[in-house]
Amino acid sequence: MSFSPLIQQLIDALRILPGVGRKSAQRMALHLLERDRSGGLRLAQALSTAMEGVGYCRQCRTLSENELCQQCADPARDAGLLCIVQSPMDVFAVEQTGYRGRYFVLKGQLSPLDGLGPEAIGIPELLERIDNGAFGEVILATNPTVEGEATAYYIAQLLAPKGLVISRIAHGVPLGGELDLVDGGTLAHALAGRQPVRF
Amino acid sequence: MSFSPLIQQLIDALRILPGVGRKSAQRMALHLLERDRSGGLRLAQALSTAMEGVGYCRQCRTLSENELCQQCADPARDAGLLCIVQSPMDVFAVEQTGYRGRYFVLKGQLSPLDGLGPEAIGIPELLERIDNGAFGEVILATNPTVEGEATAYYIAQLLAPKGLVISRIAHGVPLGGELDLVDGGTLAHALAGRQPVRF
Repeated sequence: MSFSPLIQQLIDALRILPGVGRKSAQRMALHLLERDRSGGLRLAQALSTAMEGVGYCRQCRTLSENELCQQCADPARDAGLLCIVQSPMDVFAVEQTGYRGRYFVLKGQLSPLDGLGPEAIGIPELLERIDNGAFGEVILATNPTVEGEATAYYIAQLLAPKGLVISRIAHGVPLGGELDLVDGGTLAHALAGRQPVRF
Repeated sequence: MSFSPLIQQLIDALRILPGVGRKSAQRMALHLLERDRSGGLRLAQALSTAMEGVGYCRQCRTLSENELCQQCADPARDAGLLCIVQSPMDVFAVEQTGYRGRYFVLKGQLSPLDGLGPEAIGIPELLERIDNGAFGEVILATNPTVEGEATAYYIAQLLAPKGLVISRIAHGVPLGGELDLVDGGTLAHALAGRQPVRF
């Protein structure tokens, strides 16, 4: 036996969500059908509105339903500081820190094996953005992975002749952990990047 | 900063799904927007079709978009055997075992503290179904919880005068586990319900 066609179709559709397998999708579908049909309809509405209405900010290329996203449209933000990240989720993460400069969102990271070169991730648009802006400092906030580091290094080399301060977010031990649980590579970075204690 | 209104609305709507918190909802929303918009639209479509189109089977009261569900409409099934469960998910679980009799789906379990009495969970409809059918045996497959046991016991007492075989699914140690990890109550049931070994 399987579920009736409409229910099975809903279960299959729910499985496109990241982290949702067969069992979770069944639980979600039956939960909505049994307990929260109006919530299910609201979700359907929110999904189709967002899928059709959300585009990309013309300036920083993060997800936004307006031509300029909230961050780019805000005149109170520091126009001399640009933070380069590799996904709209990262914009959200950096915002949580209290950063109030500008952003540029790459489409992922350089990955020649997957056929992702500079054009594919939006390097030409980044250079254009920097040439049209008046930035004093560019912060490279790509992921601390091999590809993320390579992307940061590639961008740093491209920007070197422009006379900007180019910085990379610090690598080191995360707060709140225990030192013996930190991997060797991270600890080596933390030692190499040690800072003088200020009194 | 928050996400732009449409994205935030989608994140809030995704949180109605069971087991989905703030972080997962963000990840789901951005995944759909960045990587799978057509999947998102399919999901919206499947949700609204199912929420509006799926009702309850007239006979067994499981979820179904037709007046009779697949199980009730199948003439090859044993019409003398009725399995009583407490949710449509349980129908699916029992089907997986190879059971090929009939079903009746209660709307939950007796729970006086939550104001759920016999009428609320559909006992009158169950009695009507049994009176209209030609069942030789009724299997009580409510959950092995306090409320599920109470519901099974209540139904058994109601059906006692009808001259049917009334059975309860067996309680005991689940397959594949280790005995010392099984709780005491379950083990006590397993001992009390021991079966002679057949050669």
